[in-house]
Amino acid sequence: MTLNLKNLLNPKIKMSKMGEFQELQPIGGLEISSVSADLYGDGRDDISLFYFQNGANFAAMYTNSKVTSASINWNLKVKRNFVKALMVNTKNANTFTGIKGAQGLKEIAQTLAKALTLKSSQSPKGVDDVIKITDLLFASTGVIGEDFPYLKIKNRIPELVKKLKILQNKFVWFKTASAIMTTDTKPKLAYEECRIGNKLVKISGIAKGSGMIAPNMATMLAFIFTDANIPSVFLKAILRKVTATTFNSISVDGDTSTNDMVGIFATGKVKNPKIYNVLDPKLQEFEKALQRLSLNLAKQIVVDGEGAKKFITINVIGARSAAMAKKVGFSIANSPLFKTAIAGEDPNWGRIVMAVGKSGENIIANKMQIKIGDMLVAEKSKMAKDYNESKIKEYMKWGSINIEVNLNIGSAYYTVYTCDFTHDYIDINADYRN
Amino acid sequence: MTLNLKNLLNPKIKMSKMGEFQELQPIGGLEISSVSADLYGDGRDDISLFYFQNGANFAAMYTNSKVTSASINWNLKVKRNFVKALMVNTKNANTFTGIKGAQGLKEIAQTLAKALTLKSSQSPKGVDDVIKITDLLFASTGVIGEDFPYLKIKNRIPELVKKLKILQNKFVWFKTASAIMTTDTKPKLAYEECRIGNKLVKISGIAKGSGMIAPNMATMLAFIFTDANIPSVFLKAILRKVTATTFNSISVDGDTSTNDMVGIFATGKVKNPKIYNVLDPKLQEFEKALQRLSLNLAKQIVVDGEGAKKFITINVIGARSAAMAKKVGFSIANSPLFKTAIAGEDPNWGRIVMAVGKSGENIIANKMQIKIGDMLVAEKSKMAKDYNESKIKEYMKWGSINIEVNLNIGSAYYTVYTCDFTHDYIDINADYRN
Repeated sequence: MTLNLKNLLNPKIKMSKMGEFQELQPIGGLEISSVSADLYGDGRDDISLFYFQNGANFAAMYTNSKVTSASINWNLKVKRNFVKALMVNTKNANTFTGIKGAQGLKEIAQTLAKALTLKSSQSPKGVDDVIKITDLLFASTGVIGEDFPYLKIKNRIPELVKKLKILQNKFVWFKTASAIMTTDTKPKLAYEECRIGNKLVKISGIAKGSGMIAPNMATMLAFIFTDANIPSVFLKAILRKVTATTFNSISVDGDTSTNDMVGIFATGKVKNPKIYNVLDPKLQEFEKALQRLSLNLAKQIVVDGEGAKKFITINVIGARSAAMAKKVGFSIANSPLFKTAIAGEDPNWGRIVMAVGKSGENIIANKMQIKIGDMLVAEKSKMAKDYNESKIKEYMKWGSINIEVNLNIGSAYYTVYTCDFTHDYIDINADYRN
Repeated sequence: MTLNLKNLLNPKIKMSKMGEFQELQPIGGLEISSVSADLYGDGRDDISLFYFQNGANFAAMYTNSKVTSASINWNLKVKRNFVKALMVNTKNANTFTGIKGAQGLKEIAQTLAKALTLKSSQSPKGVDDVIKITDLLFASTGVIGEDFPYLKIKNRIPELVKKLKILQNKFVWFKTASAIMTTDTKPKLAYEECRIGNKLVKISGIAKGSGMIAPNMATMLAFIFTDANIPSVFLKAILRKVTATTFNSISVDGDTSTNDMVGIFATGKVKNPKIYNVLDPKLQEFEKALQRLSLNLAKQIVVDGEGAKKFITINVIGARSAAMAKKVGFSIANSPLFKTAIAGEDPNWGRIVMAVGKSGENIIANKMQIKIGDMLVAEKSKMAKDYNESKIKEYMKWGSINIEVNLNIGSAYYTVYTCDFTHDYIDINADYRN
């Protein structure tokens, strides 16, 4: 297949950059497409469809926010263990859009269900079933509170269904990952494969999000597809576990979207040995692969954080519990003072001390040790003996900074990933609508 | 007394600006002084002393941080209901300074106790008592983790004691309020008077702080002096109540210092009717005056927030409890996205919705109403019918912005004060030590 620039309608994305990304493999049983409903006014792709020929088992995690998108409300309304399609739109979050937003979404669902039923009846393989609106999932991302442009979207559904492709080569994946972007500067893609029993299964994932950011707020969306055959109930357990240390361990600015969603979809095309138990050892390799893939996508989101110049890893170890380690880690990661110090390449460990202190966790100041890189900077409630400012300043110039806080009161740990806080963050978020 | 520029050694403070400040009155029984221990290397005043001729009843509230200054540890160690003096130093927080920091403070206390005992024995009025180190309180603010310069401070104690002045005219108050500053651009002063029974009592207060900020972190310190005669136990109850809706209702950047302290000192010089009960109606006027004074100082701190261009008042009403209203209010006030939108003069109410949603409080999105100024912008989970963007944009240009969030699920309320998030914040905090 030749490189077709016209396939990549998001004007922010340069095809020449495609070589920098991991090459994703097709997932059997999945068809994808993306087209433009002209929501941005520049013709870029803004609606995407993921269609599962024979349906898919699935699991999803949603934002904890008390204010949620009509699409999230839709997904939560029906208890589903099986889906036929997922549709995503950008530009408009369909949040705080009142009854009109919910009704618009319902019309879209009805139109999409009809179009997919028609497609399925035309299938040469004779797959022929009636797709119900309860078989569909939705995700939206974009501006809050503006009228949901459901007509524009609905009118493009025939084209979206027509363009469904079963062969998702690297171009198709790249195009689709670009179509779900809002303020992202790069699409996010990751691929893993592993064995379940004697069968090789594939996992392809895409994501968007650059913190809780402009235009009005960027949502984190991550969609992961596999050809493995795993029941929804086990997918749920694994996704919950994996998300806790991947998508939930990142922070760009501490804000939380109304539209966040992470979903995994398993088409079951690969006839791997049947799984009867979430603790089945055959699932271990899959869980590890999913962990790697999710962490990879999560890190790509942090790296693309609004205005971010540095990637920061905060390891909190020696805690009484993982929850304590996590709270301390996020207290540091969400401190504007800490994040601006990193932007200024200032080894200002006093701000780490401050952030640990304000976490509310019952730490013992005198036991705490702080490292920047592998250099001990503070212990026993004072600056470390061998503290060498010039050496640490040199380290602070790197693009990736590691911080370790050892609380020395237990053996639990947690790692948080974040980015620095720069002028560009203020620019992007203060001046967006002007 | 003539205006003496040399009295105002903090180079950041212009005497010509003094007219902008409230004129504070002397408090009977109090003597104050401030001198330079040359901690900044530019000769500005950096140590201050507040001496109570016949001692003072007092109450104090300290930071909730688990990492605290040696001075806070000192104040908390002895259960005191009565103090003879309070000493404050800037430039060095005496935090994370190990055993040396604590020992240095003890030496300072010993020297100060001796010098004050000597002074008291020389008093013409024949006040003659031995001042113990447990009669002394301390506050420090400045850089964390650098060696505490206790010798420099100790050596200036004789001069500090010698310069104590009983007549605190407006120049002396202004000089002292300037001497406790770190990154503040203005001293903070407030004055109130009221009646307790048939007696007029005075309340003079000073404060410092501009958020949890540069050099390494600026502490909030507030010291309030009154000539009223109120037992410490009642001062504690009133201070706790007043602080909850004043000093604890402000946020510049959501960070918390290791050194925060708010103290009230009552010399008892005015022989107001004795107070036997914290609910004594005679105390009501005093509590109200203290509330006004504290809110005044708290607002001055917000206005002086690093890089702040706009003062923001967030009223959360219709909550199930004040705690709920407070949590929602701070969720908005501490959101970098909300604060940058205000800096950009963007009436981006979607970010208010987002911040309410992520507060973790059990709100009902459909009941919530949001006002910017007195203009309703959102209700019933959508944009308000009469939303007028150009009118609201005009309002966003003002220096003081009011936000009202009505949760419509109860009758409790809370007000939070904050400032916007500008380029200057990043500059000050990223580039400080370079």
